[in-house]
Amino acid sequence: LSPPDAATGTVVALRFEQETLWALDQTALPWIERELELRSAAEVADAIARLAIRGAPLIGVAAGYGVALQLLRDPTPAALERAAGALKRSRPTAANLGWAVDRVAAAATAEGGVSAEAALAEARAIDAGERAASDALAAHGADLLADVRRVMTHCNTGALAAPGRGTALAVVAELAARGRLEHVLATESRPLLQGARLTVYELRRLGIAHELIVDSAAAGLIAAGTVDAVLVGCDRVAANGDVANKVGTYGLALAAGAAGIPFVVVGPTSTIDPLCLSGAEIVIEERDPAEVVSAPAAGGPAQLAPDGTACRNPAFDITPAALISALVTERGVVTNPGRDAIAALLGAR
Amino acid sequence: LSPPDAATGTVVALRFEQETLWALDQTALPWIERELELRSAAEVADAIARLAIRGAPLIGVAAGYGVALQLLRDPTPAALERAAGALKRSRPTAANLGWAVDRVAAAATAEGGVSAEAALAEARAIDAGERAASDALAAHGADLLADVRRVMTHCNTGALAAPGRGTALAVVAELAARGRLEHVLATESRPLLQGARLTVYELRRLGIAHELIVDSAAAGLIAAGTVDAVLVGCDRVAANGDVANKVGTYGLALAAGAAGIPFVVVGPTSTIDPLCLSGAEIVIEERDPAEVVSAPAAGGPAQLAPDGTACRNPAFDITPAALISALVTERGVVTNPGRDAIAALLGAR
Repeated sequence: LSPPDAATGTVVALRFEQETLWALDQTALPWIERELELRSAAEVADAIARLAIRGAPLIGVAAGYGVALQLLRDPTPAALERAAGALKRSRPTAANLGWAVDRVAAAATAEGGVSAEAALAEARAIDAGERAASDALAAHGADLLADVRRVMTHCNTGALAAPGRGTALAVVAELAARGRLEHVLATESRPLLQGARLTVYELRRLGIAHELIVDSAAAGLIAAGTVDAVLVGCDRVAANGDVANKVGTYGLALAAGAAGIPFVVVGPTSTIDPLCLSGAEIVIEERDPAEVVSAPAAGGPAQLAPDGTACRNPAFDITPAALISALVTERGVVTNPGRDAIAALLGAR
Repeated sequence: LSPPDAATGTVVALRFEQETLWALDQTALPWIERELELRSAAEVADAIARLAIRGAPLIGVAAGYGVALQLLRDPTPAALERAAGALKRSRPTAANLGWAVDRVAAAATAEGGVSAEAALAEARAIDAGERAASDALAAHGADLLADVRRVMTHCNTGALAAPGRGTALAVVAELAARGRLEHVLATESRPLLQGARLTVYELRRLGIAHELIVDSAAAGLIAAGTVDAVLVGCDRVAANGDVANKVGTYGLALAAGAAGIPFVVVGPTSTIDPLCLSGAEIVIEERDPAEVVSAPAAGGPAQLAPDGTACRNPAFDITPAALISALVTERGVVTNPGRDAIAALLGAR
């Protein structure tokens, strides 16, 4: 297993070495720390589909490397097309996935023919860019929330979700590093418990005081005044500021709005999809009902409801822009995000 | 195990026979159907505290029998005081608990001295009254929601939560019996999964089409137009109409309000506490963090987060009266519940 990043002490979720993508297996955490060795686009796509690699920015970086891995074996247009297709189909909602695949594919073919070297260089550039974005958005978010002492966060948005320090949890870590933060309430984030398994794991390593709650306790605890702000990540941001994020996000936004505390969405601009006009256009992934009927537990999957129970299992929901106090990106903060402000942000390259 | 009630086909959660309170062990469902044999107030209090018996109206009835059980062994003022104290302390939030204990204690001492026979008669009267209330509120609720085809419900509010057919789930069952209902979305209701374990069990026995969802999927599915109304039970209703109910209820009320669909609270008038002026006065039970770190599963408790993880575990939350479309009781429906309307309902004996 790779050691934590020396500079930040954070976990290293992905690394590309020896023509292999080494990915911390997030389905096994926190019980088992092991890396997957991925050597083809199909292996990367499979790891993304089963959430061994997850978090919108991390998915994008992994998919970029996935294209490069395939071209290292078979630098042909057919291989590129198959790799790009398999990776884009692995999960439908994260904007970063298609964005990264398209960037790497364009770089690979920029000189005519198909260049594995150019693809790998572009994948590495995306990785480096997202690491820099993580540092930048952490600083912007911590500046914005300088007066915040107690935050609630949902799902996992740390170093396991995005290169570097993550997104919303990077802001949390930066607030803690500045000596501002007192306490974090982390939702468990059923069905796959990214909060209970991954956010608790990261907060413990970062030495940040925290308590875990079931998802349905969030709204009442917000109303009871237990936190000063709610911070979440994002999987796709529409041009009008509507946000698709982990299922449950919309309910947190309603509760924060009712309590009059900031509801802040954090993510790199690679998560913004300018071609998607509003949340109504975002495809919400419905995952296997088996995820609802069971839960990942220390000894393997635990059965929570009888076999054959019918389920709905949307992985995401849509939070309307009107409920979002601020969108924090590496290029800066958009308060009360809307179409014009987001277009201005994207235009300011 | 007692057979289902012949008249309704519903499960029998409690029965008093042979100087014993037989209680279906709700911690073991749906995997194991077994009855506990309870012969003292302490045994009943323990069953209530660990949620083997649960649901505000059912807790009240069980506590009434608990007092009577103790007096059958020891008909003295000291035994009555100990029994009443132990039962009232077993859970703090449900209004019906203190109400039933006080009623049975008053009946036991009405003639001077302490009468076990009078106590048992009063406990049986409470049981019969709550059964009748269940039938009456089911009819009132089904009349109110005659146009509703798809409902969402939270936690368990059926025959396992209240004598007879239950509260909110009794309305659901009555709508189904009238041929109106098409579909139910049931939340799993972490941490103890009363939805996944108990509501699914009841809906299956009732033959009502349903799907199970994780709690955090509720708000997004309401916003997406998947249900026509949200129906929940209640553990304590304040004089101004604020409602304490299973944690997560407040978030559902916010989502229903934002979507413009009815949010309906269902319970017998024994759940109304006229001495409690508002939700701010209601004591919210905080339960063991172990419930958050684990989940009840088919093979026994499953560990979901590392040992030693700090947790908040409020069992209930408060929904302000302003978010409640209607309160359905056995005496009728209060739309837009508030202080005057609730006082009028309670005055109309």
